[in-house]
Amino acid sequence: MNQDYIIPNAWSILEEGFDATMVKSSESLFSIGNGAMGQRANFEEKYTGDTFQGSYIAGVYYPDKTRVGWWKNGYPEYFAKVLNAPNWIGINVLINKEELDLNACKTVSNFRRELNMKEGWLSRSFVAELQNGIEIKVESKRFLSLELDEVGAIKYSVTPLNSDAKIIFSPYIDAGITNEDTNWADQFWDVLKVSQNNQQSFVEARTMKTNFHTCTFMQSRLFVDNEEVLTDCNNKKTDKTATCSYQQEINQNQTYTIHKFGGYVVDRNRDKNELVAAAKCILDKAVSFGFDALLEIQKQSWAKIWKMSDITIEGDVKAQQGIRFNIFQLNQTYLGTDASLNIGPKGFTGEKYGGSTYWDTEAYCIPFYMATKDQSVARTLLEYRYKHLDKAIENAEKLGFTNGAALYPMVTMNGEECHNEWEITFEEIHRNGAIAFAIYNYHRFTEDYSYIPEKGLEVLIGIARFWHQRVNFSTDKNKYVMLGVTGPNEYENNINNNWYTNYIAKWCIEYALENIETVKLDHISDFIRIKEKTNFNDDELKSWKNVADNMYFPFSEKHNVFLQQDGFLDKELITVADLDQSQRPINQKWSWDRILRSPYIKQADTLQGFYMFEDHFTNEELERHFDFYEPFTVHESSLSPCVHSIQAAKLNRMEQAYTFYLRTSRLDLDDYNHEVEEGLHITSMAGTWMSIVEGFGGMRIINNMLSFTPRIPKGWKSYSFKVNFRNQVITVNVSQNGNNFELEGKEEVKILVNGELVNVSPNNLVTA
Amino acid sequence: MNQDYIIPNAWSILEEGFDATMVKSSESLFSIGNGAMGQRANFEEKYTGDTFQGSYIAGVYYPDKTRVGWWKNGYPEYFAKVLNAPNWIGINVLINKEELDLNACKTVSNFRRELNMKEGWLSRSFVAELQNGIEIKVESKRFLSLELDEVGAIKYSVTPLNSDAKIIFSPYIDAGITNEDTNWADQFWDVLKVSQNNQQSFVEARTMKTNFHTCTFMQSRLFVDNEEVLTDCNNKKTDKTATCSYQQEINQNQTYTIHKFGGYVVDRNRDKNELVAAAKCILDKAVSFGFDALLEIQKQSWAKIWKMSDITIEGDVKAQQGIRFNIFQLNQTYLGTDASLNIGPKGFTGEKYGGSTYWDTEAYCIPFYMATKDQSVARTLLEYRYKHLDKAIENAEKLGFTNGAALYPMVTMNGEECHNEWEITFEEIHRNGAIAFAIYNYHRFTEDYSYIPEKGLEVLIGIARFWHQRVNFSTDKNKYVMLGVTGPNEYENNINNNWYTNYIAKWCIEYALENIETVKLDHISDFIRIKEKTNFNDDELKSWKNVADNMYFPFSEKHNVFLQQDGFLDKELITVADLDQSQRPINQKWSWDRILRSPYIKQADTLQGFYMFEDHFTNEELERHFDFYEPFTVHESSLSPCVHSIQAAKLNRMEQAYTFYLRTSRLDLDDYNHEVEEGLHITSMAGTWMSIVEGFGGMRIINNMLSFTPRIPKGWKSYSFKVNFRNQVITVNVSQNGNNFELEGKEEVKILVNGELVNVSPNNLVTA
Repeated sequence: MNQDYIIPNAWSILEEGFDATMVKSSESLFSIGNGAMGQRANFEEKYTGDTFQGSYIAGVYYPDKTRVGWWKNGYPEYFAKVLNAPNWIGINVLINKEELDLNACKTVSNFRRELNMKEGWLSRSFVAELQNGIEIKVESKRFLSLELDEVGAIKYSVTPLNSDAKIIFSPYIDAGITNEDTNWADQFWDVLKVSQNNQQSFVEARTMKTNFHTCTFMQSRLFVDNEEVLTDCNNKKTDKTATCSYQQEINQNQTYTIHKFGGYVVDRNRDKNELVAAAKCILDKAVSFGFDALLEIQKQSWAKIWKMSDITIEGDVKAQQGIRFNIFQLNQTYLGTDASLNIGPKGFTGEKYGGSTYWDTEAYCIPFYMATKDQSVARTLLEYRYKHLDKAIENAEKLGFTNGAALYPMVTMNGEECHNEWEITFEEIHRNGAIAFAIYNYHRFTEDYSYIPEKGLEVLIGIARFWHQRVNFSTDKNKYVMLGVTGPNEYENNINNNWYTNYIAKWCIEYALENIETVKLDHISDFIRIKEKTNFNDDELKSWKNVADNMYFPFSEKHNVFLQQDGFLDKELITVADLDQSQRPINQKWSWDRILRSPYIKQADTLQGFYMFEDHFTNEELERHFDFYEPFTVHESSLSPCVHSIQAAKLNRMEQAYTFYLRTSRLDLDDYNHEVEEGLHITSMAGTWMSIVEGFGGMRIINNMLSFTPRIPKGWKSYSFKVNFRNQVITVNVSQNGNNFELEGKEEVKILVNGELVNVSPNNLVTA
Repeated sequence: MNQDYIIPNAWSILEEGFDATMVKSSESLFSIGNGAMGQRANFEEKYTGDTFQGSYIAGVYYPDKTRVGWWKNGYPEYFAKVLNAPNWIGINVLINKEELDLNACKTVSNFRRELNMKEGWLSRSFVAELQNGIEIKVESKRFLSLELDEVGAIKYSVTPLNSDAKIIFSPYIDAGITNEDTNWADQFWDVLKVSQNNQQSFVEARTMKTNFHTCTFMQSRLFVDNEEVLTDCNNKKTDKTATCSYQQEINQNQTYTIHKFGGYVVDRNRDKNELVAAAKCILDKAVSFGFDALLEIQKQSWAKIWKMSDITIEGDVKAQQGIRFNIFQLNQTYLGTDASLNIGPKGFTGEKYGGSTYWDTEAYCIPFYMATKDQSVARTLLEYRYKHLDKAIENAEKLGFTNGAALYPMVTMNGEECHNEWEITFEEIHRNGAIAFAIYNYHRFTEDYSYIPEKGLEVLIGIARFWHQRVNFSTDKNKYVMLGVTGPNEYENNINNNWYTNYIAKWCIEYALENIETVKLDHISDFIRIKEKTNFNDDELKSWKNVADNMYFPFSEKHNVFLQQDGFLDKELITVADLDQSQRPINQKWSWDRILRSPYIKQADTLQGFYMFEDHFTNEELERHFDFYEPFTVHESSLSPCVHSIQAAKLNRMEQAYTFYLRTSRLDLDDYNHEVEEGLHITSMAGTWMSIVEGFGGMRIINNMLSFTPRIPKGWKSYSFKVNFRNQVITVNVSQNGNNFELEGKEEVKILVNGELVNVSPNNLVTA
């Protein structure tokens, strides 16, 4: 049974009633972030119950020494761990000398938490009776500013309800934090200096090994019944913490409020030697704005984001809440403004998996950012991989490849591989294909070819060289085969001729060849530069072509389908429907060998190919493969339901498409995988967006035009989404009664709706 | 280049000249053991150079918490580590206040080390000039008594050569030791009590977690020029050590000698609360015998072992030294007297690999022990697995098997699996087959059927059930297939239809069925007991038979060979001869994926089946498979050359057989694998014995008779070996001029020589 405690609401994530067993879940679900930093929804005040503390700074990581049982040649020396950063949100609260701790109160009532996605803030309120008999009402609100992205603000109020009380607020910053995810229980932070300057406190610390210098800072303002009080603070330092205490006698029903401003400055984008000065400057600015003004700016910032990326759904509040939660979290994680960042699988909501960049970025996230942001954001994501090309070539060299062959890492923070399972690190090489596909996808969507001669072609050449070397000729099959790979379906390891991998390898080679030709014709100076740099020649290209032309694809005549891999039909082909439900999820119930020899598929594999290369196949072929593979699919990857939702929609199986949609959009809200307390599945959230836009909306690029085939699930009245297509924004409104299209832009656009040409002119609602 | 510093000698391992870079190598090569304990050839005196300290007590281990990068369901919680035990050999030596340390002397000359295999002792002598100018001659001799297997003795002498000197001997025992092989740097030993009683010292310690209680003990006697001196000792204790110091003014050219007796008593076979008393008793006994008498007994004990197990080779001293080294080390490791022990892959020579029992025991070691010891020893080894049957059933249950299916562990100390690589632990399941085969082999050799109704059949049933459940029916092939296994060739993982595994699985089922029938006919009460206990019925047996009758075996029509696994012919089939030599050994040069997709074979796989089931195939079939697979074999397992040597001999390719023989017999002496400093390859040493007896001697059991097809390598004058066959000992003498056979026993025996029947009567040399 999945969880079901989040209250449905169109714009907010809501929790009512205090349940200590749900604290870690909610800490994930109510996480906030602003692209530069983020944090779990930990309580400000002390909490002695079960909690998972987490605050994260984008791009700041720790290279944790690799831990394996049995070392294999080629394993990386370290795994880049997402790093729990110093805590700046803490406020200890003393009420008549008793410390407020929700785990130690006599009673807690009226507990309510809200993550307001429209405006980008988190609030919490409750009434608690302390052991000393004092009853208090607490309200807190906090946000991480999008405008000033090094700063966050908290407004925290206490109202004694049944007597006067002496209240002490002790806001603090604390660098004595640890990671839950650590291989060797290393210390990750080295605290350099704790300093206090009247109302401002600073903790300077650097990360071990990576030597990122940071300054965590805070400053507070105090209010009684909204009247600012200028009390002196009582400053205290330890070797890792700075605390300021403010005390006040508060009458019954009076409210004592602290506005705490805090955050981080980091030498990733600041002068290492001027961090405290920078922090002061930021604090001065934030404090002078004040909490309310900063919050007002926050609302405006989020309004801008929503204007472009919102999807509305009428008639299904859970679906509405789900999609907005996904869009909100994606925007909290990555905004496309810093070219050295990427979209980590857990964003700023947990430590698990480590690294910041997986193939998820190219396969799932780029379409979302491409359609809901300025197209420069997608280009920035492509350039991220271009910057890592040399490292990808080194990575391939470690595995025995030569001549500039590039293998992009499975998991990375800075371009170096940091994963260490041979069957994944060395064999789940299809990731290389997604990186080439993203270049194609970007050009197809934006029509911006300039990226390819400038940067993309070098990436394509490195990838083509990898595939060309990775196959070998089978005299037995008289074809090129690819042995020992792991496909997107990670429930198969070290298999031969994974259809998806072979297919994308062939495509990558052909796409590289095609672009070498185009660049030669249209961008001769780039061509000369690239030819000189990469040193390819006609013989090499001929040899590539030979491989692409003679690639082997396993196929079953009997079933008339491509086989996921050699030997797939030898399996005991019992469908998931016929599998004993007590055995699910198989990744928690079965040993690995049993999973491997079963036919069960973790996530789209052959169907991932049919998704990416949909236009290479007929609808009948899609249907046949969907009907063959989906029944064996257990969807135990967060990346699975979205692809299947899109394909089910395409096959006009709207009920199934809707089921998959709910599963992807509410994966974390309803905790389908029973692991939400570890953090959210950020990258798969882009798949949710695709489920609506490409699935229900049927958006494609066909003949260089935007095309839609709108469908609507049974219970929905209507839904709408926007697409930023080549710098013009098209709004698509789909309802049970018909569909219309609207253009914000300058020039008329031709689109296809259900295959028919439709002209959409600016600011004119077109029904089609 | 392999090492080449061991001086060839028929009966001894010799090293001359001190080379600090060879110390760790020699510590392995000169290891001594007596089945109950063993130790590396560490120096008695202090040594500050590079060394690997190791002393080991049979059956005493530590369950080290499993360390993996990525946990898989079914992994064991711990890995049983071979445990470095307290040091009892240490003797610190002070010469005029300067501590003797070969790493700190001005000069070292006349350094000589000898491991006398005939008599079972290790000696070392050298002349050293200390920094203080004193020149001394040092001689040491030590052994671990076979007769009193809890005790060892050291005779250590110092003679000042160029002046008088004050010499202090400080023999000590030290439980402050650590393991090199540890997952988490845990402390493995908890020292309980250090006590001294005049001349005797004791350190009681227990192992963490496993709680083995041990008492390490020592006592010394002192001599000047062979005249005993009864000095008082100066006793000193720390929390982990006990030291006694003896000092003496020694004239130039006088010799000061210490006889140190030490060792361990353990609660595995002693009362936990009486360990010190037991140690005292042992010490009293050893000391009253004295060093020389104990050594005399040692010589007699080894003479008895050699009488039965020696192999002589005339005309090739390196080959002679090699085979004796192998036989000697096997006997140092395991003598068959303690039913709870087994043959660890490194014996008492290092920590690596952990556990004590691998499939090596059944596949390689049992034939050696069966033919060179009383047949009860082989039966004891079989019973070891019978005692672990319940654990093997539990192990299979963890992997989802039911109904009493048994999967024996890959690595174990007490019956529980302790290995943790999914591709090995869960998939290298052919080990189960070797355990059944050993039962067959034992019966074939000894004609002792009683083991099967008494114990063996239950094991066979558990194993048959495992195979029956492990296959699945492929509708595609209309056969039973076995997916996701690792064969003996560990350079392939998670492959389908490994021919060897499928073949032995089918054989196991058929052998179990056959024995169920035999036991039913001839041992009805056992049959009833077993049927009740294991609860099989005719339907189940029918279902087994159906699997055995319809097992799939990959076969190539083109090459007319069985394929190692599905898809083998898709590989890039470049032979080892054509492989760039700079790429060898591939396990040190290539990443794992590259090894896996290559055709290279670590050790006999298909050919392992042809070895074990030789009588199922014609010579032509063997030759075809040998010629197909051997050229792809890199022999990077110590278990590889022996099987190939036997098969090459059978194919009358004596030059090749001899090359393989040298490689197996001198694997450690010449350090082919560049890892001898970690310890010796004990279990593969039994393969060396097989290379001569089954390879050159061509020994087989044919028609229930011993059969020989003697061949002799070019350079050898002659060789001879003995076989204890059904309680009669047959000596086989093979020479360039002809062969003869001799029987120590009571009754005439019919044997086959080159296929001809020969009668050998007692004590009568028969030429044939």
